[in-house]
Amino acid sequence: MLASSKTAWKEAKGDLTSLQSMVGPHLQALEKFLAREAEEFEPEIRELVEYCLQAGGKRIRASLAFLGGWREFDQVQDELVRLAAVVELVHLATLVHDDILDSADTRHNRITAARKFGSSTAVLLGDALFAQAVHLSTRFDTPEVCRQVALATRRVCVGEITQTLRSESKTLGIQEYYRIIDLKTAELFAVSCRLGALLAGYPEEYVTAVSEFGRRLGIGYQIYDDLVDFFGKEEKAGKTLGTDLQSGKLTLPLILLSEKLDEDGRKELYEDLRKGDETKIAVRTAEMVERGVFDAVVAAITEETDMAAAALEPFLNEPPSRPLLQLIDRLRAQIQALRSDGGL
Amino acid sequence: MLASSKTAWKEAKGDLTSLQSMVGPHLQALEKFLAREAEEFEPEIRELVEYCLQAGGKRIRASLAFLGGWREFDQVQDELVRLAAVVELVHLATLVHDDILDSADTRHNRITAARKFGSSTAVLLGDALFAQAVHLSTRFDTPEVCRQVALATRRVCVGEITQTLRSESKTLGIQEYYRIIDLKTAELFAVSCRLGALLAGYPEEYVTAVSEFGRRLGIGYQIYDDLVDFFGKEEKAGKTLGTDLQSGKLTLPLILLSEKLDEDGRKELYEDLRKGDETKIAVRTAEMVERGVFDAVVAAITEETDMAAAALEPFLNEPPSRPLLQLIDRLRAQIQALRSDGGL
Repeated sequence: MLASSKTAWKEAKGDLTSLQSMVGPHLQALEKFLAREAEEFEPEIRELVEYCLQAGGKRIRASLAFLGGWREFDQVQDELVRLAAVVELVHLATLVHDDILDSADTRHNRITAARKFGSSTAVLLGDALFAQAVHLSTRFDTPEVCRQVALATRRVCVGEITQTLRSESKTLGIQEYYRIIDLKTAELFAVSCRLGALLAGYPEEYVTAVSEFGRRLGIGYQIYDDLVDFFGKEEKAGKTLGTDLQSGKLTLPLILLSEKLDEDGRKELYEDLRKGDETKIAVRTAEMVERGVFDAVVAAITEETDMAAAALEPFLNEPPSRPLLQLIDRLRAQIQALRSDGGL
Repeated sequence: MLASSKTAWKEAKGDLTSLQSMVGPHLQALEKFLAREAEEFEPEIRELVEYCLQAGGKRIRASLAFLGGWREFDQVQDELVRLAAVVELVHLATLVHDDILDSADTRHNRITAARKFGSSTAVLLGDALFAQAVHLSTRFDTPEVCRQVALATRRVCVGEITQTLRSESKTLGIQEYYRIIDLKTAELFAVSCRLGALLAGYPEEYVTAVSEFGRRLGIGYQIYDDLVDFFGKEEKAGKTLGTDLQSGKLTLPLILLSEKLDEDGRKELYEDLRKGDETKIAVRTAEMVERGVFDAVVAAITEETDMAAAALEPFLNEPPSRPLLQLIDRLRAQIQALRSDGGL
């Protein structure tokens, strides 16, 4: 069951998202800011909010906000800290709601809010977190932050809704898949990068390029994340894996594998996955490697990261370009390591 | 089972909320605006959004926005139409989420979004509606709209969460009850009034008075609405009634009745209500009338509407004061009619 490649992928994830070395002082400022922000909530729910905030997470979107408006390693900009808090709160709100829908037990190695407080409370808690993100986004001089965050949030929801509605049917075209992940993941990646660059005062054409970088990285990252649901290990990922499969979510590995099967074979595939039988899923995972699906998914990620890098190509002298491109280098290196380790 | 008083109450509700005669042209402009707004959503969910928007509802909050910024009957102000759309979208989002929590089947005589599209989709649909409300609220010259709407939304959620958390315990003090309805209902009533007056350019002290009017009306209205859960008829209310009782929501009629019982009596009361047995609920409703609970609840409503009226007292020459006070007159008249009809 490809244990070595699994490990490699999990390391790749760890590496891409262990952003401490890149934006350490910025993330520390963010955590302080979020702790203060929790105190703004009414006493009745402060403890619930703190529970959600302490869940941590990888702070990828926050890091993208910092990197999008990058000046220097130790130059923490207050406006970017506030922006990072906004995008993390929005993301947190969507996670709280996602975990209700997926009936997930754990996330970032902690019991989910839905499981801990009940799904009714979790619906409202997610709403309150989002409302606070919006409230925070009105504290900027420009209304652009609030406007773009609201728009991105709407799109994230539309992506998730489409995914939910489509999971009932058993086919999903590759184009539809890309549309869904563009909405549900890449949108907020793009907005985090774009608003970071905007608030830091970078010129318009660079803001646009950074935004495109974020979008492509977001698509690549989501494809990668979908692969983890097959090849990952729960204790490393820190969340309930396999929920995508059982909830009928159609992701790229699955779409590509099902394209290689006839109608009966496809039915059997979905049957296997829905049952959640570990042995059968392991067989399917092995089948993915054998039939080139694994390679094709990696190629799809590479295509996105190449486009992300290309967007920054004309602006290599701008301070954010170098650290942003480092994100891509890390992912690429891990893909290489994966190939070697797994003998693929 | 007090059929006549029930009818009177339902008429009272119909009358208070049949705002067509007061703000007809404004509400028509709102409906047109909302229909256009639905087209701003991504094609994937447009139909779902339209379904929610067509559910109609009483548009009380929208009417309060119009009345708060009142000039003349046929003078429709674009900014107020937009504001009305914002507060209605926020309200609609909370209704979509509420109906998930309450497992309600109908609302405004239509199948709820939760029942029609599934609760997963309804969680996300509510999120998308709220995101769109925020997006719309960034189209004002002042960031105040967005700021106050976000804050009010957070408070609405906190009110609902507290209610949910408290429904598990079986006691609720009157003060706690007031705190909950202040947050979950009066907050958005107050903001609708306040922002209406603000956008219409009324002086600050009048804006504050109109806001206080909205808050008091909101509290009175919520107490009234809680009474309907006991004394209302489902086909008239247009929504599943009795869900408050079965979900363990503690409302003023219930709190006041339970205060008149000893510990065993209280246990029996909650037992009766939770089972949802209609005969037993009818007995409890009659008991409320006999033991003066009904009167006490009406007195509580009157106290709030008196305070609402008092807030406007110093400003009777401002154009919004007259129509706002009419809302109170209508409710008072219906309370009187209720007493006569029901022989209470």
